[in-house]
Amino acid sequence: MVLAKVIGTVVATRKEPSMEGLKFMLLRPVDLEGKEGGGFVVAVDAVGCGEGEMVLYASGSSARQTHLTDKRPCDAVIMAIVDNWEVGGKIRYKKGESD
Amino acid sequence: MVLAKVIGTVVATRKEPSMEGLKFMLLRPVDLEGKEGGGFVVAVDAVGCGEGEMVLYASGSSARQTHLTDKRPCDAVIMAIVDNWEVGGKIRYKKGESD
Amino acid sequence: MVLAKVIGTVVATRKEPSMEGLKFMLLRPVDLEGKEGGGFVVAVDAVGCGEGEMVLYASGSSARQTHLTDKRPCDAVIMAIVDNWEVGGKIRYKKGESD
Amino acid sequence: MVLAKVIGTVVATRKEPSMEGLKFMLLRPVDLEGKEGGGFVVAVDAVGCGEGEMVLYASGSSARQTHLTDKRPCDAVIMAIVDNWEVGGKIRYKKGESD
Amino acid sequence: MVLAKVIGTVVATRKEPSMEGLKFMLLRPVDLEGKEGGGFVVAVDAVGCGEGEMVLYASGSSARQTHLTDKRPCDAVIMAIVDNWEVGGKIRYKKGESD
Repeated sequence: MVLAKVIGTVVATRKEPSMEGLKFMLLRPVDLEGKEGGGFVVAVDAVGCGEGEMVLYASGSSARQTHLTDKRPCDAVIMAIVDNWEVGGKIRYKKGESD
Repeated sequence: MVLAKVIGTVVATRKEPSMEGLKFMLLRPVDLEGKEGGGFVVAVDAVGCGEGEMVLYASGSSARQTHLTDKRPCDAVIMAIVDNWEVGGKIRYKKGESD
Repeated sequence: MVLAKVIGTVVATRKEPSMEGLKFMLLRPVDLEGKEGGGFVVAVDAVGCGEGEMVLYASGSSARQTHLTDKRPCDAVIMAIVDNWEVGGKIRYKKGESD
Repeated sequence: MVLAKVIGTVVATRKEPSMEGLKFMLLRPVDLEGKEGGGFVVAVDAVGCGEGEMVLYASGSSARQTHLTDKRPCDAVIMAIVDNWEVGGKIRYKKGESD
Repeated sequence: MVLAKVIGTVVATRKEPSMEGLKFMLLRPVDLEGKEGGGFVVAVDAVGCGEGEMVLYASGSSARQTHLTDKRPCDAVIMAIVDNWEVGGKIRYKKGESD
């Protein structure tokens, strides 16, 4: 899984029928300090996240292992909202503080 | 999924029989402003898109989760035509305006 | 899928029994003008291509969706021989002309 | 599989229900000397590892081939704790010595 | 598939039970002359190869399509030992000569 920040949303009305009702989020992978990197991906939201939140997303066939994305042409899914992470015993990101 | 622009088409008459009738599109991934990057991929069109349109494509086994591509040797599929996207509450791309 | 040129072949007599009889081709991905890039991959030939031909190959689990490669440890398959491609309405590669 | 060092953990209370109870570890891939590189990934722990340990992780659908991760939206799993590795007949990393 | 040279082995006694008895090999991808590049991967040996040999390995779910690796958390498998390869009609690597 990859740590990323939700930075926006994508709207697409014409699409594979099975994708109806899914929400497409724009995500930027972050470094260990929570700073956004240069690239971005589009992932389906399976946890009800919002812009600015730090999340984990899974890619590939694993992105279809949720009720929302099962058997759909979805290759990236947000499957967790991150509270915090620590490296070497020290908190490096904590929700509400580091945003 | 990845945001990309449809820039062309590929014709291949000799191919795996299961790929008969599918349309191969040339896609260039774009940045958050909708500007084309350097690379490109070939994806099967599952939504009836045209050149110049902004689309979302899915890769890997997820590219086979449409009626057109099911059980076929297809590793990239266009599964949505993009209307717009926004970052931080501001529209960064809108179909018809930003093209 | 990726556009690539067939540049050679690989011979391997000792291998997974299920790979017996398959032909391993050396492929170099090309740019939009058909010029070879720096990297290369080894793919199984499912369409009867020859050296110098421009092809499409599929990667990952999609590489197993042909009769030849089904249930085999094959992660790249040539599934089409390319006749031509066009970008912005102009032919950029045509078989026999651009080679 | 990839050689990596466990450098920390990620906490996420709001997540896909199927991910409940799984432990998310921060991993940094290492070079042949065991030195950490620049990137990092988040993987589920299937072997009971701890911070500072050298591990192997598997990605993609293979990350779901453990009892803990089966049918879950998990695309990276720690499936082994490394004792040592050798290159050209010489030990390059040994647990307890090279850490 | 990718051409690579076997450069070493990895020992891991604590691991997913299903990985018991499998041999982990250190592989370095090579260029068309057979020279080793900078990166490396760990793959399960399904063909009985030894250090110094040139091999082909498959990644992703295709790495589970051997008797040894079926349904195991293995994302890279050595499925062939290479005898030789040729580019443009000329042998570029031949076992025993180019090593």
